[in-house]
Amino acid sequence: MPEFMDVHHNMKGITADQLHEAHQADLAIERDEQVHFKQAWADPESGVVYCLSEAPSAEAVQRIHERAGHKADEVHPVPLSV
Amino acid sequence: MPEFMDVHHNMKGITADQLHEAHQADLAIERDEQVHFKQAWADPESGVVYCLSEAPSAEAVQRIHERAGHKADEVHPVPLSV
Repeated sequence: MPEFMDVHHNMKGITADQLHEAHQADLAIERDEQVHFKQAWADPESGVVYCLSEAPSAEAVQRIHERAGHKADEVHPVPLSV
Repeated sequence: MPEFMDVHHNMKGITADQLHEAHQADLAIERDEQVHFKQAWADPESGVVYCLSEAPSAEAVQRIHERAGHKADEVHPVPLSV
């Protein structure tokens, strides 16, 4: 399954609890689109959040994020990794 | 050890071999700064590369990337992760 990295900006001040809740909201519905959110990282100071997923398409990733209430600002396929 | 996500833009057309070589160049010298580059992901089409590391500081991450020949455009601490 292809991997994607998506990016959310403007999340300044995000807490560990809020990141956890947002991730759980994705996990709760991700199967509807055959997406799996594997990991997420946040910088509360600059307000950037990165999410790594496996999914059939960038659009599928975005649909889950939108339904969970946090549309991504960017979704990049990352076909290469080390 | 704190985690960091750094971002390189303008890497359009990067190949799997080039990503591997760049990562190996970081690994070869990372101990000089107590940095460890854990994973990296690349999108050859948009030219963005994300690198996840553990390091004492963002400056240490950048010093290794600069010495390896590929200065990052952004280095973000990511104290929160799920």
